Amino acid sequence: MVAINCDMGESYSIYRCGDDEGIMPYITVANVACGYHASDPVVMQKTVALAKRHGVKVGAHPSLPDRDGFGRREMKLERDELTAAVLYQVGALSAFLEAERMPLNHIKPHGALYGLASRNEEVAVAIADAADVFDVPLMGMANTMHEQVWGSRGPGFIAEYYTDLDYRADGSLIITREHAAYDPAVAAERSVRAVTEGVATSVDGKDIPMRADCICIHSDTPGAVDLAKSVHEALQPYLT
Amino acid sequence: MVAINCDMGESYSIYRCGDDEGIMPYITVANVACGYHASDPVVMQKTVALAKRHGVKVGAHPSLPDRDGFGRREMKLERDELTAAVLYQVGALSAFLEAERMPLNHIKPHGALYGLASRNEEVAVAIADAADVFDVPLMGMANTMHEQVWGSRGPGFIAEYYTDLDYRADGSLIITREHAAYDPAVAAERSVRAVTEGVATSVDGKDIPMRADCICIHSDTPGAVDLAKSVHEALQPYLT
Amino acid sequence: MVAINCDMGESYSIYRCGDDEGIMPYITVANVACGYHASDPVVMQKTVALAKRHGVKVGAHPSLPDRDGFGRREMKLERDELTAAVLYQVGALSAFLEAERMPLNHIKPHGALYGLASRNEEVAVAIADAADVFDVPLMGMANTMHEQVWGSRGPGFIAEYYTDLDYRADGSLIITREHAAYDPAVAAERSVRAVTEGVATSVDGKDIPMRADCICIHSDTPGAVDLAKSVHEALQPYLT
Amino acid sequence: MVAINCDMGESYSIYRCGDDEGIMPYITVANVACGYHASDPVVMQKTVALAKRHGVKVGAHPSLPDRDGFGRREMKLERDELTAAVLYQVGALSAFLEAERMPLNHIKPHGALYGLASRNEEVAVAIADAADVFDVPLMGMANTMHEQVWGSRGPGFIAEYYTDLDYRADGSLIITREHAAYDPAVAAERSVRAVTEGVATSVDGKDIPMRADCICIHSDTPGAVDLAKSVHEALQPYLT
Repeated sequence: MVAINCDMGESYSIYRCGDDEGIMPYITVANVACGYHASDPVVMQKTVALAKRHGVKVGAHPSLPDRDGFGRREMKLERDELTAAVLYQVGALSAFLEAERMPLNHIKPHGALYGLASRNEEVAVAIADAADVFDVPLMGMANTMHEQVWGSRGPGFIAEYYTDLDYRADGSLIITREHAAYDPAVAAERSVRAVTEGVATSVDGKDIPMRADCICIHSDTPGAVDLAKSVHEALQPYLT
Repeated sequence: MVAINCDMGESYSIYRCGDDEGIMPYITVANVACGYHASDPVVMQKTVALAKRHGVKVGAHPSLPDRDGFGRREMKLERDELTAAVLYQVGALSAFLEAERMPLNHIKPHGALYGLASRNEEVAVAIADAADVFDVPLMGMANTMHEQVWGSRGPGFIAEYYTDLDYRADGSLIITREHAAYDPAVAAERSVRAVTEGVATSVDGKDIPMRADCICIHSDTPGAVDLAKSVHEALQPYLT
Repeated sequence: MVAINCDMGESYSIYRCGDDEGIMPYITVANVACGYHASDPVVMQKTVALAKRHGVKVGAHPSLPDRDGFGRREMKLERDELTAAVLYQVGALSAFLEAERMPLNHIKPHGALYGLASRNEEVAVAIADAADVFDVPLMGMANTMHEQVWGSRGPGFIAEYYTDLDYRADGSLIITREHAAYDPAVAAERSVRAVTEGVATSVDGKDIPMRADCICIHSDTPGAVDLAKSVHEALQPYLT
Repeated sequence: MVAINCDMGESYSIYRCGDDEGIMPYITVANVACGYHASDPVVMQKTVALAKRHGVKVGAHPSLPDRDGFGRREMKLERDELTAAVLYQVGALSAFLEAERMPLNHIKPHGALYGLASRNEEVAVAIADAADVFDVPLMGMANTMHEQVWGSRGPGFIAEYYTDLDYRADGSLIITREHAAYDPAVAAERSVRAVTEGVATSVDGKDIPMRADCICIHSDTPGAVDLAKSVHEALQPYLT
């Protein structure tokens, strides 16, 4: 069984980012931005309402406090400062969930915070401390500090596989700021293989073990909606 | 029966504002800033924990989005924009309450938002829409648009009497940016009279009717702690 | 003689706004956002460099401090607070002009600040006080408080005519948040008429007097580049 | 010959930081905050005017974009992003200098940016690129990446000695978030020795070479004004 997740609600003020309305029908879980790297209260409200209309579960997508850098710049926060920053954002999102009488599904850190948490134990722990308050699982990458720290905590760990990005032979993800278009058929095939066989193909053609509780797709790639549709169709038999 | 409330947690970053530790023992309800006019996640966390240690109930103190102006500058927001902004802030505070397993007691708008809501029906309604989501009462001034709108809504209205500020003969409050020191004995006497007789004295010596579900004191006035102590002692028999 | 101006550099972080590269060849003056309603230091640097490559003069486009609302929400600032806010923004832009050894051409307030200055004398005066420091003219609408206040000040007043918006018979502008596409040929014809005859046509077909030192076009309307091209071609003989 | 410098204008909104009015008479150079870690346009305007009244030269004190953390948290910015951020801030300050017809004296980075520039060549170079635009020297610590990079650039390097902080035997500074009170007599004596002999005493009592073009004092330490007065008096014969 698998979920399909996508970062949603990253528009801000007059600015648009990603085709949320186009993508929402093809995912089962939305990671909704909380105002620190993107979004604002009106965008959050609309995004949660859109998710509800499509029966999509909502998790929080908190970030380092860096709107100017879209949460992509590393910052050094104290552990308690980071826990408090995550609590603030997740709480803010919870208000819009409460308005729609929806539960919080999970927490998935954004950008540089996600990256730091995959390498730095203190950061991973600070985020887990916030997740404990809401008693929801954390979403991250298998085979990283994420899994080590979050898997051992009460609310548990959701491992995600990026079907529209490439992996190195050592299992690490090749992160790119501008995502290129990705072949929908290849993405669909890879998603099914990860789910059914627990295996991914590295950028140099090797098989690598891949735990995939969740398939992650992007909303701002060229052709994102087609890819989402294709992955959604292929995974239909396995969706939770 | 009456409560004593005070705005708390208005420090920010390295900056201090008000003597929260000195005041907390003498109040029964704290209005905690939510990051839009003052405070930050660490300050919010510490303020909620401080309130808990003293058995003080916590309400949210949301503001217009104006940190530079400490929420004291009027801004024109659309109705849905304002509701969403209040939801965001109250939700953020709720996370810290959740961490301490405390309920949200009420919502009291800050500064220019408080002033606008006392005169402008659309603003009062926008805030009430947010309070409905959390099903908590709103705190405001008697004899204003506040009371008219909020009193007629489900969660109800808590009328507050400012014991360290002056009122005009028409019952309106004389708001000052820099609060002068106020005589603790006078404040205590006035508080008791408002509670027991429902009457206040205007700046020109007239009796004016005053509903006082709650006595409001300030934390950043010279001599604030002494005044709080004096009011708290005098009201002891009437505290909820 | 006339100039063609357009608001430029309103992108921010990862977000794009308007086709600056497409429009720049067809204008003679750019109003560059200063970070309060849009833009950031990198966008400002690139926008100034782009203007220089096209021989376009650069003015500052300061705003009320309201990034969340794109500077479109009215705010009440004290007079000295507003002057200081404008100085801050214009100074910030000046650094990027200095880096390119370009002079500051003018100041044109943005959004709600522009609107307030057209009606409120104190606001108009506060902005003029900032312009005096830089000794540059202010750009605004003819027949408004703008012209009255700014026209009487030393550095002078540049009256602009919006060729892609409509006017009422009383000469006032019909401002819209979402700008619809506008016929390039009509815009070109109107621009020439305003320049050569000092007359515009109101939305109900009446001739209204129109001082046009400068034609203003938008960069984020559908078909903006075609309209800019058409207006630029028609005004060729009159461009300063 | 030597200058006495102090960080000034770090108040913000309703919040006060340091006793600028008390310290200003005893310094010769002020590093004025630019709004990224502290200050706002009104504070900047007042601080520059205060410096002028006391005949104090003004330099810019730019920071990483981190108001929440008072510029004390490390952030990873791209080189061009950092140069643009420094240009923005220094330009903003320049507007207030222009209003008072004062020249910009120098640039001294704040907090984490100062620390990064003392260790990281790319950061030091990015800041120097901004200083080149204004053609002013940079202020930093001797024996660090600061001196190496900035000393080799056109506008030059001003080495500062912290008279109210301690140094290790290797010449490195012991930075503390909360500065303790420091004996004014000791600070005065050390300042004179650094200026006349080029020598400081380490925390374990050893003599270390110390280039001191400028003595740095703090405004927010307990007893800061007394220390400033004492250092100023002792250095009287050597002040530029």
